[in-house]
Amino acid sequence: MPVKNGRQYIERIDRQRINLWYQGERVSGPLSEHPAFRGLIRTQADLYDLQCDGEYIERMTYLSPLTGERVGLSYLPPVNADDLVRRRQVTEIWSGRHHGFLGRSPDYMNTALMAFYTAASVLEQSSPDFARNLRDYYAYCRENDITLSHAFVQPLASKWSEPADTEGSIAAKVIETNDKGIVVSGAFIMATQGPTCEEILVFPSPSFSLSEDGNPSAFAFAVPNDLEGITFICRESYARDSAFDHPLSSRFEEMDTFVVLDRVLVSHDRVFFYGDERLFNRLFQEGNFHAYAGHQILSRYIAKTEFLLGLILSLAEEQNAAAELSTTSRIARVMTMLENLRALRLASETTGDTTPNGYYVPGNPPLIAANLQFPEYYEEMIHTIQQLSASNLIMNPLEADLSSAPKQYLEVYLKGVSSSAKERISLFRLAWELGAGPFGGRQSQFERFFFGNAKTTANRMYQSCERQEDYKALVHQLIGRDL
Amino acid sequence: MPVKNGRQYIERIDRQRINLWYQGERVSGPLSEHPAFRGLIRTQADLYDLQCDGEYIERMTYLSPLTGERVGLSYLPPVNADDLVRRRQVTEIWSGRHHGFLGRSPDYMNTALMAFYTAASVLEQSSPDFARNLRDYYAYCRENDITLSHAFVQPLASKWSEPADTEGSIAAKVIETNDKGIVVSGAFIMATQGPTCEEILVFPSPSFSLSEDGNPSAFAFAVPNDLEGITFICRESYARDSAFDHPLSSRFEEMDTFVVLDRVLVSHDRVFFYGDERLFNRLFQEGNFHAYAGHQILSRYIAKTEFLLGLILSLAEEQNAAAELSTTSRIARVMTMLENLRALRLASETTGDTTPNGYYVPGNPPLIAANLQFPEYYEEMIHTIQQLSASNLIMNPLEADLSSAPKQYLEVYLKGVSSSAKERISLFRLAWELGAGPFGGRQSQFERFFFGNAKTTANRMYQSCERQEDYKALVHQLIGRDL
Amino acid sequence: MPVKNGRQYIERIDRQRINLWYQGERVSGPLSEHPAFRGLIRTQADLYDLQCDGEYIERMTYLSPLTGERVGLSYLPPVNADDLVRRRQVTEIWSGRHHGFLGRSPDYMNTALMAFYTAASVLEQSSPDFARNLRDYYAYCRENDITLSHAFVQPLASKWSEPADTEGSIAAKVIETNDKGIVVSGAFIMATQGPTCEEILVFPSPSFSLSEDGNPSAFAFAVPNDLEGITFICRESYARDSAFDHPLSSRFEEMDTFVVLDRVLVSHDRVFFYGDERLFNRLFQEGNFHAYAGHQILSRYIAKTEFLLGLILSLAEEQNAAAELSTTSRIARVMTMLENLRALRLASETTGDTTPNGYYVPGNPPLIAANLQFPEYYEEMIHTIQQLSASNLIMNPLEADLSSAPKQYLEVYLKGVSSSAKERISLFRLAWELGAGPFGGRQSQFERFFFGNAKTTANRMYQSCERQEDYKALVHQLIGRDL
Amino acid sequence: MPVKNGRQYIERIDRQRINLWYQGERVSGPLSEHPAFRGLIRTQADLYDLQCDGEYIERMTYLSPLTGERVGLSYLPPVNADDLVRRRQVTEIWSGRHHGFLGRSPDYMNTALMAFYTAASVLEQSSPDFARNLRDYYAYCRENDITLSHAFVQPLASKWSEPADTEGSIAAKVIETNDKGIVVSGAFIMATQGPTCEEILVFPSPSFSLSEDGNPSAFAFAVPNDLEGITFICRESYARDSAFDHPLSSRFEEMDTFVVLDRVLVSHDRVFFYGDERLFNRLFQEGNFHAYAGHQILSRYIAKTEFLLGLILSLAEEQNAAAELSTTSRIARVMTMLENLRALRLASETTGDTTPNGYYVPGNPPLIAANLQFPEYYEEMIHTIQQLSASNLIMNPLEADLSSAPKQYLEVYLKGVSSSAKERISLFRLAWELGAGPFGGRQSQFERFFFGNAKTTANRMYQSCERQEDYKALVHQLIGRDL
Repeated sequence: MPVKNGRQYIERIDRQRINLWYQGERVSGPLSEHPAFRGLIRTQADLYDLQCDGEYIERMTYLSPLTGERVGLSYLPPVNADDLVRRRQVTEIWSGRHHGFLGRSPDYMNTALMAFYTAASVLEQSSPDFARNLRDYYAYCRENDITLSHAFVQPLASKWSEPADTEGSIAAKVIETNDKGIVVSGAFIMATQGPTCEEILVFPSPSFSLSEDGNPSAFAFAVPNDLEGITFICRESYARDSAFDHPLSSRFEEMDTFVVLDRVLVSHDRVFFYGDERLFNRLFQEGNFHAYAGHQILSRYIAKTEFLLGLILSLAEEQNAAAELSTTSRIARVMTMLENLRALRLASETTGDTTPNGYYVPGNPPLIAANLQFPEYYEEMIHTIQQLSASNLIMNPLEADLSSAPKQYLEVYLKGVSSSAKERISLFRLAWELGAGPFGGRQSQFERFFFGNAKTTANRMYQSCERQEDYKALVHQLIGRDL
Repeated sequence: MPVKNGRQYIERIDRQRINLWYQGERVSGPLSEHPAFRGLIRTQADLYDLQCDGEYIERMTYLSPLTGERVGLSYLPPVNADDLVRRRQVTEIWSGRHHGFLGRSPDYMNTALMAFYTAASVLEQSSPDFARNLRDYYAYCRENDITLSHAFVQPLASKWSEPADTEGSIAAKVIETNDKGIVVSGAFIMATQGPTCEEILVFPSPSFSLSEDGNPSAFAFAVPNDLEGITFICRESYARDSAFDHPLSSRFEEMDTFVVLDRVLVSHDRVFFYGDERLFNRLFQEGNFHAYAGHQILSRYIAKTEFLLGLILSLAEEQNAAAELSTTSRIARVMTMLENLRALRLASETTGDTTPNGYYVPGNPPLIAANLQFPEYYEEMIHTIQQLSASNLIMNPLEADLSSAPKQYLEVYLKGVSSSAKERISLFRLAWELGAGPFGGRQSQFERFFFGNAKTTANRMYQSCERQEDYKALVHQLIGRDL
Repeated sequence: MPVKNGRQYIERIDRQRINLWYQGERVSGPLSEHPAFRGLIRTQADLYDLQCDGEYIERMTYLSPLTGERVGLSYLPPVNADDLVRRRQVTEIWSGRHHGFLGRSPDYMNTALMAFYTAASVLEQSSPDFARNLRDYYAYCRENDITLSHAFVQPLASKWSEPADTEGSIAAKVIETNDKGIVVSGAFIMATQGPTCEEILVFPSPSFSLSEDGNPSAFAFAVPNDLEGITFICRESYARDSAFDHPLSSRFEEMDTFVVLDRVLVSHDRVFFYGDERLFNRLFQEGNFHAYAGHQILSRYIAKTEFLLGLILSLAEEQNAAAELSTTSRIARVMTMLENLRALRLASETTGDTTPNGYYVPGNPPLIAANLQFPEYYEEMIHTIQQLSASNLIMNPLEADLSSAPKQYLEVYLKGVSSSAKERISLFRLAWELGAGPFGGRQSQFERFFFGNAKTTANRMYQSCERQEDYKALVHQLIGRDL
Repeated sequence: MPVKNGRQYIERIDRQRINLWYQGERVSGPLSEHPAFRGLIRTQADLYDLQCDGEYIERMTYLSPLTGERVGLSYLPPVNADDLVRRRQVTEIWSGRHHGFLGRSPDYMNTALMAFYTAASVLEQSSPDFARNLRDYYAYCRENDITLSHAFVQPLASKWSEPADTEGSIAAKVIETNDKGIVVSGAFIMATQGPTCEEILVFPSPSFSLSEDGNPSAFAFAVPNDLEGITFICRESYARDSAFDHPLSSRFEEMDTFVVLDRVLVSHDRVFFYGDERLFNRLFQEGNFHAYAGHQILSRYIAKTEFLLGLILSLAEEQNAAAELSTTSRIARVMTMLENLRALRLASETTGDTTPNGYYVPGNPPLIAANLQFPEYYEEMIHTIQQLSASNLIMNPLEADLSSAPKQYLEVYLKGVSSSAKERISLFRLAWELGAGPFGGRQSQFERFFFGNAKTTANRMYQSCERQEDYKALVHQLIGRDL
């Protein structure tokens, strides 16, 4: 069956031999046994199992137009509002499991690839091969349920480098083409989940080029992670094994990697475009990447907000503070955020539009509104967790302490009003991971910059508003000014 | 035709002889000629004309179930989601004219009365007369298109007074009953638009009472404004006549009045309940007052936000600041507010529920979310207006200056980059009224406290959330805690 | 006696016949009887009386170095920290009377003129006449206790105009020089208190000029208000006569005026410089205008904060809210603001410096810190007033109502817990003027933009910090990086 | 020499054998070699060396009144403003080394003990022994330069426990007295630096007691850390060894411990009071604990703010963002915080008071103002670090990567505009530790709750204001209300 299960996912990840570096060492053994990756791999395997589970398979898959076999529903190009709702339910089910902590849950990249696929025809003007390559790759991923990561953003030094077609430039670029394919060098600041995926989509913003035609930095392709010339370098891992001490990082720690391409040979059939820098923006625009991805993201936001609301309610109860006016007000604010996010999703599904190619695209302004607000929402929720936890975020015993000699003291002195010491401590361990630990620190920063910084998102909102003149007209009419 | 037009509205207001005091003087002449009221009366007459206008009448009225004649659609008790949308359109049309500046546009009280009407059956347990009185009064208002104000809140001294059935108590209460009716004394802090309405609905929160049965402060009724014993005392008026100098207060200044009842005899058929203090809350709850009113209010919020967005866009353009990043960000925030409000309205209409009596009630949590957020939104929009206007909010010539000798200077020196001096000044006059003038000061305070202070609204939100246990369960499952 | 008293102030203001326009009419009678000016003139006369009062004269004046007679101490060029403290006391006494509501209390411009005077020598390089003119004018003002306003900022159209030496330019500029003086045309956006002063200091930022030497828009001078060719145009006045209804605007309403110069002939001895645009900045810099004015302003800020704290404490008491945690927190924040402001003033006086010319200048960074923060402080204090006043900021009877027939009701129903109705209403009238009325609206906007907008002030702070490299060195040392 | 050096500090810490538990294991070897403690111990040894260093000894010590030998100046009870300045300089020197990251730098507890000592006479009314014990203990610590921690706050379960003299109560209390001393049981939520100190001051808030005299939970004493019956349980350590990867936690990680007393026998001469619960508050009040400690803390705040400003300036430079308006504004805000903090310290030193016992106490309101504001300042500075660091806070290679094979890539692609890759990475490692790592998470939470939560501090501010009536009088005079 094309849709894969957890075991298959693990086997494929363990089988590949990527050039992966962690803390100065080449990682050699199977990733599913490595402490920095095993928790996440297990969680992700659960997600894949879910889509093969009898209870969920109908909702999470559809019949391949190619083979009639069941393929992942997040690959489905929607043609009406119902399709959007079906797509949304996949994300609801998966993010109901990972509570929104996986920014790179497989549905994210499936959605991205689907978005680009819907605009494959824009590539035809450059070359019919390019369009066919993209369509084929989309079908390949869908039929084989490929787990994909991506590399978009280059480091400061690459961005500040000389023009792309200057010899000394270190911008990501094609340095040679031959009959087998194109040869690419460059570096990318961050591929989240790089090592725990099978393939990588490389899709840089083109750098400035001197030549008018044929910008060597304008290209996109996808290749297996273990292709020769690709190096992944990890950051410090925050994953720990104890689900008691680290309930989140033991399950949801997505590794971020710095990716270097050193003369990587990409075969021609995997190249989606090359040379024409205008295709970069057109694929994003006409593929409605922001709208489709924004729709997936919003369901992740909602799942995360529900989980954080649950934590905040639990903390308020544990601290005997639920009846205090200041606590009620904080909680009401979180409930309000949740109402906004849900309503915006509904609005995006209801106000969608059909593209010339016949695809149904969710309304974008409500989605941008969610993107613009969520970083502030998240920050406020974390702040509320910190306020409600007080010194319990500083001093917290560990699982091992609860089976050591001083356990007798902890059980007496650290119980709550209606909770055991173990229950109370476990709740504050969770609060600590989000409000003061490194897993939470990375999550906070991720949400802050995830879909562009505040300026970028604000500008996207500003540009998306089509009725600016109508609103001004209301004012001009009132003050009797001719328009 | 039951639905009234502007001329009829003016005639009725001018005909009544209420005991109205303004700046220490009894107001004697027709209100439609009085400088404190004429602008608002003209605006409101326009609204009534609109509903009789061929272009709008279908959308703004429906056929009376009693007479088959056209009555105002804001009286319609909705029985399905479509009815809600039809009701919403009335508010959209009217608030598209007053831009949300009329907090007491007639549809507000029509909606309130409709809400109470849908719960008339709760009065039957106290007396079948009460239920019939309320239903009759609702029909009377609908058939005659009565313009209604209301009195809910009593002054601090009344609230802090002795128990209601103590002689010295100054709480609003029934001091006598006789065969003609009940005799009531008391005071109410604020009836907005009192003088520009025909009748007043009096509906105080009951005060504490010593007796177990028969709380003299528990009652509700409606009477004509000019009934003997009722006194209205006005605040300072901010209305001015020049639509150039005061584009808003010349049109939209709703007077607030302090209302005193001094031994007012209310005939029995106008009493909706009396004695049983539990009926106060039940009418509000089972009549779904907050949901129905909240739905009307949200459309008013949206109209106001659209107008303010128009003003902000115009100011950005006038100040040549539209391209500045900080301006774009401010504008994007306002656009985001608008997306939230619209999405919340959609969600409330989509997630409604049918009452045991068969009425369709909009989903309340999205509406409370709007109530909780709008005061902050409004404050931020006004702040943006102030920031964009800078010194133009301080120094502003007046209409008279533009036809006086120094006009020659103003036309040269006060022109904008692409606007005449007159256009530029008129825009900043509008900004001044909202951002620094007394009309705007009252609007800001009104929005801050309009539907309860922040604590009340936050508590309403907190209580409205029915899934608190589900959210906590997400957390408890993760940390392996039994529920 | 050179220092003037209140009667002399009024006589001089009434004597001059300036070309003053109010609401399209030329103002003809004595200003001290005009409703838009009389309240402020009376208040300002009180200030002048104070400095002649036996109780204060020692603290508010010093002996003229020229005549030995008593002149205003705000003219004193300080030569040590004690002088600064003496200067501060003058502002403390005066702003203790006007509670900081007079942004143009006479000590402000006296201080500004003193600041420029201390840098008169920079004019010598351009012409010894210029330096002498400035010194003479300073002495003239000091010896005659001249009340001065100023015109700095030009309207948008003037700023966007063509180069100053182009014919069509409407920038303020010298259009002719002759043996009597220079002839100037142009307009200025705002002279606060223009009509209630005797003379005006005109000191525009130079516009761009085509010629390398002799920029016609680079000049400064001072002239009597009623010189031919000068026109003052007023904004709408917010002054009212009733000290009960309008306790602030009846006393402290400073009129703002638009000032136009139409071929005004300025005699040579009143010109401080002309032609060299660099002198504009140098007079500001080397005269330490921002530091000297900032020191005066900070004492005004402190007086205003004390008054607002008094109001907030009174409102908390009147509303029975002083014991609520949220109220205490709000009040504590205001007390904290006051501690900051006082401490910053102390720091500025303690960390001053002596100029090459021997004058003592207060430390500037603490003063800029105060300028940067006060707009936010003020906004928060007003917000607290609004929150504590609630509906009392919307519905408020007037003085006339308290002597009309319904007075009997007001006295019963509008009393407070321990205050009479009259006392309670008068407190909320004051709160209304600040929190919702036009006087308060103008004060809020004035404080927001008074000493430059937020960006300008932030940049001033950034530039003032001399230890940036030291702070970076702390970090570089820790991470072992060579500097 | 009484004042100890770094070597002596390490020897003493290593010599004691406390009952210390870390991650479920009893810690047995010397702490100065244990990875969780060695970095901090080395840093603290440096501080002790500093005070013995010829360059600093004069400024950091004074001559013991008992022996004439040099003792630590943070023990000096100040009798005038100069003494305060001398005390401050000690904290400036030490926190210039630890940049304010050590909340329990030795001067903190030295100051606390000195404060209680100045009020020893209040204990005499209970027993002359108590007063003598406190004085002796103070002298003992000063003469032997004892490093002290403290235990104040009990866990929720102890606070919610039954009355202290009920058998089942788990509140900290004296459970027996005998001729050797008092026997104490109970638990304390947090002793920061417990294991890296020599002795511990135990000083709980008394719990509720049934008996009128002799509250068993009212007591204070100090004992060596390794006294029988005392258990310390650590939280997870955030200390790492690499000063490149973890520049802060490798040096400044203060361990927090949960402290349990199980039938600890405290000899009579170490008991400072027992039984009379009023003495708890009196020692705090009359010893001016908050003022003396607040003065030490404020210098720590200043050092920390200087370091963070240095980091923010460095990040702005590294990101090429220093010239952006939004960056300048953020930096100007930090500079303003620094001006406030410095000015408040100056004000506290200048406005101090002399106690009946002859000690000079810094003015408290400016210090409380600093306490109330710093948590917000800190949060904002961290937020600025996060904003300036963007994705560099997510993806960061480690020291080991810079000497591994992929080093060649990192050096090319991760260099900055004017910095090497190593320099650039090291700066972001520091930013990560503060803005997203667990060391920074604990620091942020520590600053939030360090000197009481926001409500407690706000109330302290409110109570400290002695001129509330004066401020109200300003308002009452203006509105003509009799006081």
